[in-house]
Amino acid sequence: MTNNLPPWRTSLSRALHLNRSQPYSRYFQLATVTPEGLPKNRTVVFRGYLNNSNQIKIVTDLRSEKVSQIEHQAWGEICWYFTKTREQFRLAGILNLITANGSPANLQQERHLVWQQLSDAARLQFAWPEPAQARIKDDSAFCSPFPSPDQPLTNFCLLLLDPQRVDHLELRGNPQNRYQYFLDESKTWIRQEVNP
Amino acid sequence: MTNNLPPWRTSLSRALHLNRSQPYSRYFQLATVTPEGLPKNRTVVFRGYLNNSNQIKIVTDLRSEKVSQIEHQAWGEICWYFTKTREQFRLAGILNLITANGSPANLQQERHLVWQQLSDAARLQFAWPEPAQARIKDDSAFCSPFPSPDQPLTNFCLLLLDPQRVDHLELRGNPQNRYQYFLDESKTWIRQEVNP
Repeated sequence: MTNNLPPWRTSLSRALHLNRSQPYSRYFQLATVTPEGLPKNRTVVFRGYLNNSNQIKIVTDLRSEKVSQIEHQAWGEICWYFTKTREQFRLAGILNLITANGSPANLQQERHLVWQQLSDAARLQFAWPEPAQARIKDDSAFCSPFPSPDQPLTNFCLLLLDPQRVDHLELRGNPQNRYQYFLDESKTWIRQEVNP
Repeated sequence: MTNNLPPWRTSLSRALHLNRSQPYSRYFQLATVTPEGLPKNRTVVFRGYLNNSNQIKIVTDLRSEKVSQIEHQAWGEICWYFTKTREQFRLAGILNLITANGSPANLQQERHLVWQQLSDAARLQFAWPEPAQARIKDDSAFCSPFPSPDQPLTNFCLLLLDPQRVDHLELRGNPQNRYQYFLDESKTWIRQEVNP
């Protein structure tokens, strides 16, 4: 796979490199759909690709609202805007939630690995009180000892997005440039240049 | 209304002010849902508020895919991340598309006004060939004379999002701070502090 990257990955790697001076260039917006059919949208952090695949790694909390959304509708769309190079990637695909239970061993291993790679501060958030509930006023509730890097907390989830369609818009061109990528019947990535 | 702004608008105005050095702080991601129930997500530009209301102004092209999505499901969610102050606003609400035909006179007037306020380059995009179709290789197709500022092209639409729920997350706190806003039965905005 590493020798045969899909063409959109080459463009995305280039964008990540050119925007690397800005830490927030690794943040993007993930849209999901509620069981009631309403869109939800939040900023999450890019944690790289799953080994030997194009699946994008995200982390999430089992107590987060997006968990039930993904269980009901596994399709998600990432919108990733790079401020320095003024380009946007939209990556639509299937979300796969890796919880503490019930996933294949290789994905559990990956979940452990991603947990280890988080900062202490990021791991601590998974020990915080229930998100989106009435604020606990005693800040000590947010100051428990750092969780062990060796064992993920049970509410820590790895979330994978497996892109099926990609739309790349370069605002800087004159006119702008836009490319769409999709998989053909033989699972080969096709690149199509379209009007912006 | 201007004397009685909802509390989230005060926070959002502050964020816009503190991040004003970065032009892209006026960009946000808008999530919608397709007729098939799949999420879509794209970057759009904040064009201010509709007069005497909290409705957020966006512009769009009648030929854009989001038009049929909004006709089918009028709910949208904005995710707006401010990179300098490290805070996120999520604004969920009802989308109202103002096309060349069939809207009240005051909204048509607003559509004209927003068209006038666009740059020549922004107006020209509405004269470009059909978006997302196979790229027309002759760049002259993208170089027609600038449209008149006095008369919007018929495919130019004003899009309004009327927020019903707002979620404000400040990453900078220690711990982080998070506030949720919603309308009570008397249409008064309620602010609730929640766990991040």
